[in-house]
Amino acid sequence: MKTNVLNFSGGPGALPISVLEKTQAALESVDDTGVSLLGMSHRSDWYQELNAKAQSNLRELLDIPNDYEVLFLQGGGSLQFAMMAMNFLKSSHQTAQYIVSGYWSAKAPLEAMAQGQVEVIWSGESEGYRRLPTMDDLKNRVDPRAAYLHYVSNETVEGLAFSNDTTPQAQTLICDMSSDLLSKPIEVERYAMIYAHAQKNLGPAGVTVVIIQRALLERAQPHTPPILNYLAHSNANSILNTPPVFSIYVLKLVTDWLIQDIGGLSKMAVINQAKANCLYQAFTEREDFYKIHAKPPHRSLMNIAFSMKSVEQERSFLQLSKQQGFLGLEGHRSIGGLRASLYNAVSLEACEELARFILDFQSV
Amino acid sequence: MKTNVLNFSGGPGALPISVLEKTQAALESVDDTGVSLLGMSHRSDWYQELNAKAQSNLRELLDIPNDYEVLFLQGGGSLQFAMMAMNFLKSSHQTAQYIVSGYWSAKAPLEAMAQGQVEVIWSGESEGYRRLPTMDDLKNRVDPRAAYLHYVSNETVEGLAFSNDTTPQAQTLICDMSSDLLSKPIEVERYAMIYAHAQKNLGPAGVTVVIIQRALLERAQPHTPPILNYLAHSNANSILNTPPVFSIYVLKLVTDWLIQDIGGLSKMAVINQAKANCLYQAFTEREDFYKIHAKPPHRSLMNIAFSMKSVEQERSFLQLSKQQGFLGLEGHRSIGGLRASLYNAVSLEACEELARFILDFQSV
Repeated sequence: MKTNVLNFSGGPGALPISVLEKTQAALESVDDTGVSLLGMSHRSDWYQELNAKAQSNLRELLDIPNDYEVLFLQGGGSLQFAMMAMNFLKSSHQTAQYIVSGYWSAKAPLEAMAQGQVEVIWSGESEGYRRLPTMDDLKNRVDPRAAYLHYVSNETVEGLAFSNDTTPQAQTLICDMSSDLLSKPIEVERYAMIYAHAQKNLGPAGVTVVIIQRALLERAQPHTPPILNYLAHSNANSILNTPPVFSIYVLKLVTDWLIQDIGGLSKMAVINQAKANCLYQAFTEREDFYKIHAKPPHRSLMNIAFSMKSVEQERSFLQLSKQQGFLGLEGHRSIGGLRASLYNAVSLEACEELARFILDFQSV
Repeated sequence: MKTNVLNFSGGPGALPISVLEKTQAALESVDDTGVSLLGMSHRSDWYQELNAKAQSNLRELLDIPNDYEVLFLQGGGSLQFAMMAMNFLKSSHQTAQYIVSGYWSAKAPLEAMAQGQVEVIWSGESEGYRRLPTMDDLKNRVDPRAAYLHYVSNETVEGLAFSNDTTPQAQTLICDMSSDLLSKPIEVERYAMIYAHAQKNLGPAGVTVVIIQRALLERAQPHTPPILNYLAHSNANSILNTPPVFSIYVLKLVTDWLIQDIGGLSKMAVINQAKANCLYQAFTEREDFYKIHAKPPHRSLMNIAFSMKSVEQERSFLQLSKQQGFLGLEGHRSIGGLRASLYNAVSLEACEELARFILDFQSV
């Protein structure tokens, strides 16, 4: 297949070519059934198996403990912002706490406000979202009686990421891992709930993975409409209504690829570290020319937001990079500048090619 | 492309082969961009054009008046059941009225209950959902002060459909057309809101089309979380967060096919009428053998639910039909029996082949 492999888009991100090829074949006949993937009933035995396999692949890759459920929902991360508050904040007489560390985490409390008391315990806004909170910043701020503490592990727009050492601690910790789930191993037991939309590392837009501890599930507010109720989805094994079959099928292929071709998340993490290293090194060699948005200790391996001395230079960088086949290097419209996103399917070779471009680029 | 064309599944339903072929090509490079459909950013110019074209195709096919907006949402019909109540019933001090004429319309008030006062003005449950309400049944029941009146135009499970003459009338009429939108022309101005998930006649599961009058949009309750607020989606032109790009792309191809290959909805309606006629005729010729669930004046052109004299006969019918390549003829698990779904992409030839099978079948 000849498709652009220099796709550094912020998302929907690139997918592995072998996955695209298998998806092509499945549009004609999926898994030797003779039936198109797009004509398959979600009540078929075939779909039951797909649903089970996609879940077990995620359990294997992330080493998910038995007391967690894996759900496939719709609506992206934004619907999770609203659903968590409808299920766990509303009628709880508790406060929901939020860390606001960038564009996306700032949106989460706005979707929750109508359901109850919302408290932002730390915000990086006044510093332009260039760093994450330290343990000291959060000290005495986390309330053990809160409904939950929500944060975003990787800020896609600003290129900030929490590390193992800086991960917040809370009684009920909920994390939006939309842009780094499956990029490295994680300790699921730290969290009451983890969720991620698919369109970075998991598959195509249209499905959202939720990994939720049973103890939290059981707190779901019973008056939440069933279609917005985590417990109802769990009871129906994520087939409460027609699921986004196509997106879940591709997610299954992507997780097969991670297990069989890559060899698991530890190996994926080594590759992702190498990819990011080669780019950060290129930027550092020319630090007179490029400015990285995020401060060093909090830099993401998934997204590098950077800028140049002038808008003209940036425009010229974008134009020339496009001519050379690079794609998706525009910065997010909220902060401008440029951005390279290095999701799982972006190869080390593609990153090396971009690093050479960064080193060689001379503005006109 | 060699894919099963005898797919009579209740949904996700079959799609036209030419659409599947174009989708295959787009997985490698969509619209000559060199980029995979699954790696395309929803903030690209390409996506802006796709979004506009999918909307304008729907406007053209359905002759949608200018004071209606076309939205692309996620979550299927079930999320609409909840959203309409969150937006138009909650805090309104009004009652929301419902017609319960089958499996799906019975679910709608359950998703709305937590938001306010819900009233079922007619239910076919005690009659086993074999007929729809007449004008007399509804007389004096429809409250002009109600937040809205909700009904389902085509009951997929039971094979019941409202006709032009039996369509309910109300101040604020909301209709779930999930299983018959785009199967025939409709008068959009009769409705304050029409919605349909894609996986019958519109495209693959994962996107839901909402056609909503501006006057209703403006009634959206401001405290609804933005991601569940119709007005917020409309203000963002359906790109409030990452849309299900794949499903919307295929929907665009399906609507292209309806315009260019079929020649519009009047022509599609003629074909659909012929398809249904040939099957109903076959059943009638052998009415000693097959029993159609729905009473004659309310029979659907999209779904025919039928049964035989014994479960053994039905099992034998299913087994033999599968051997001959027919697919998806199982009845819905809620009523059992058998069902043939005749969505747009099921050809007249496929229906004729099924009619022959129905006429020839001898139970063992």
